[in-house]
Amino acid sequence: MAKRLIPLFDRVLVQKIAQKTVSNGGILLPESAGASKLNSAKVIGVGPGKVSKNGNVIPVCVKEGDTVLLPEYGGTSVKLGEDEFHLFHDDDILGILKD
Amino acid sequence: MAKRLIPLFDRVLVQKIAQKTVSNGGILLPESAGASKLNSAKVIGVGPGKVSKNGNVIPVCVKEGDTVLLPEYGGTSVKLGEDEFHLFHDDDILGILKD
Amino acid sequence: MAKRLIPLFDRVLVQKIAQKTVSNGGILLPESAGASKLNSAKVIGVGPGKVSKNGNVIPVCVKEGDTVLLPEYGGTSVKLGEDEFHLFHDDDILGILKD
Amino acid sequence: MAKRLIPLFDRVLVQKIAQKTVSNGGILLPESAGASKLNSAKVIGVGPGKVSKNGNVIPVCVKEGDTVLLPEYGGTSVKLGEDEFHLFHDDDILGILKD
Amino acid sequence: MAKRLIPLFDRVLVQKIAQKTVSNGGILLPESAGASKLNSAKVIGVGPGKVSKNGNVIPVCVKEGDTVLLPEYGGTSVKLGEDEFHLFHDDDILGILKD
Amino acid sequence: MAKRLIPLFDRVLVQKIAQKTVSNGGILLPESAGASKLNSAKVIGVGPGKVSKNGNVIPVCVKEGDTVLLPEYGGTSVKLGEDEFHLFHDDDILGILKD
Amino acid sequence: MAKRLIPLFDRVLVQKIAQKTVSNGGILLPESAGASKLNSAKVIGVGPGKVSKNGNVIPVCVKEGDTVLLPEYGGTSVKLGEDEFHLFHDDDILGILKD
Repeated sequence: MAKRLIPLFDRVLVQKIAQKTVSNGGILLPESAGASKLNSAKVIGVGPGKVSKNGNVIPVCVKEGDTVLLPEYGGTSVKLGEDEFHLFHDDDILGILKD
Repeated sequence: MAKRLIPLFDRVLVQKIAQKTVSNGGILLPESAGASKLNSAKVIGVGPGKVSKNGNVIPVCVKEGDTVLLPEYGGTSVKLGEDEFHLFHDDDILGILKD
Repeated sequence: MAKRLIPLFDRVLVQKIAQKTVSNGGILLPESAGASKLNSAKVIGVGPGKVSKNGNVIPVCVKEGDTVLLPEYGGTSVKLGEDEFHLFHDDDILGILKD
Repeated sequence: MAKRLIPLFDRVLVQKIAQKTVSNGGILLPESAGASKLNSAKVIGVGPGKVSKNGNVIPVCVKEGDTVLLPEYGGTSVKLGEDEFHLFHDDDILGILKD
Repeated sequence: MAKRLIPLFDRVLVQKIAQKTVSNGGILLPESAGASKLNSAKVIGVGPGKVSKNGNVIPVCVKEGDTVLLPEYGGTSVKLGEDEFHLFHDDDILGILKD
Repeated sequence: MAKRLIPLFDRVLVQKIAQKTVSNGGILLPESAGASKLNSAKVIGVGPGKVSKNGNVIPVCVKEGDTVLLPEYGGTSVKLGEDEFHLFHDDDILGILKD
Repeated sequence: MAKRLIPLFDRVLVQKIAQKTVSNGGILLPESAGASKLNSAKVIGVGPGKVSKNGNVIPVCVKEGDTVLLPEYGGTSVKLGEDEFHLFHDDDILGILKD
């Protein structure tokens, strides 16, 4: 059973970060309690990049370990063993999240 | 909880400027009182720029701190904690507003 | 309240010229009296220009002060205070009107 | 009232040539009498040309004074005073008519 | 009355070749008698060629006098006096017919 | 009656290879007897190639005499005398078949 | 009967890997037993690559022998004798699977 997937071209493999529904004190957070539902994910792996019109490779903008903001829709779901991942094209990813 | 978002490619992160509905003297301005409903916003952050066909990065035209005029439609809404922001592509922004 | 708008990319800010409906002698001109309904406007401001595929900026063809012929449709209306302006892309403008 | 229009980009200003419906001897020509209904026009003015992908200006193929064959449809009608003109893009014009 | 048409860009002016419906011996050929209905035509005139993205002119592939195979559909019909011609874009023409 | 057709641009003239329905021993092969219905054809002639954006000719990938695998749909049928041929664009042909 | 197919352009010939439905101990695996249904395949052959806008050949990213992850849809099925293969365009293949 394959354990690793190396994305091709400008694809980025991410694993979505589950939303915090319990406060640090262990209390169940109601939906509207400011816990903004960020569609965020961790970058697991990136492809070499898209090939430009004249054949140059345009490297991907995010790197392994980045926390990124995903668009509401899109992406291809991939199950490797028990884990679920998603593949997005580099230019569909909205931005990099920093603390 | 992520506090900052660094836009990717030619995306621009803006925060919409609420329309003035009360005159300086505190009187509620009627809709038609010349308070033109400008769809304006403050630029919070910009991406590095779009990648041209032959791989060059084309820098974004607006910069952090600019006040810009947004199109009537479009943009992606992003909530970071309590604050709401919007992401627009650089070439969807109509212009820079100056006093 | 913002008083000036600097267009971005290849956008052109224009102010439409009201059609003459009264002859020099003060007589109300009937619609068909040769007062051809030219969709003309004055150029108020221009953007730096469109960015070509390989990253060069292609300057706009019209300049501030030109009188131009607008297409019948299109353009984005912008109200700055009491005044109404319109934004057109450079290559939607049909031509420059000369006496 | 503007009397001249300078076309922009690759636009060509033409004035349609009325079809001959009376023979030289003054006799009314029936529709089918070989007086082929050529959609021809005289070139009044031309724009500088279209801008290519990498920013070069590609000059227009026809010049002022040419008699050209127009496509059956298309073109933008422009009335300057009493006269009616039409604007076509250079690559919509089918060919140059010669005696 | 214009007698000649010089095509523009990559347009090719052709005159369709009527299909042989009578055998050399003068007998009327039935439709199915192998007289394949080739949509062939004689090239009367060619334009200078299409302009490539970076402004180079790409000459047309066929020349005056060639016998060509036309696609089943397309082309613009042009009547010059009594004669009927057709205008095709160079890359719509399927091939050159040789004995 | 034209006997030869020289394809233009990136077109390839092919003649489809009839499927074997009788085994070597002369027995009628049932449809499912592994006689896979390969949509194969012999290359009769090729065009010079497609013209790239900047005017270079990109030669065709197959050559006269190759046996090729055709897509299930597409192609233009051409009858030259008694024979039926088909024209395909080079990049519609799936591959070259080898024993 | 052709035994080999050499893909053209950026096409990749693959043979799908049947999903394991029996555990090593020979027990029939229920659908949901974590045997994630990976749409994987072995690369049998690759084309030379796609031709870029200015005529350069852009080599394919995968090579013979790679195990790849296929998209859920797409691909052209090809039967060579008893075996079934599929043709995919290089940039439709999601990634390379590694143990």
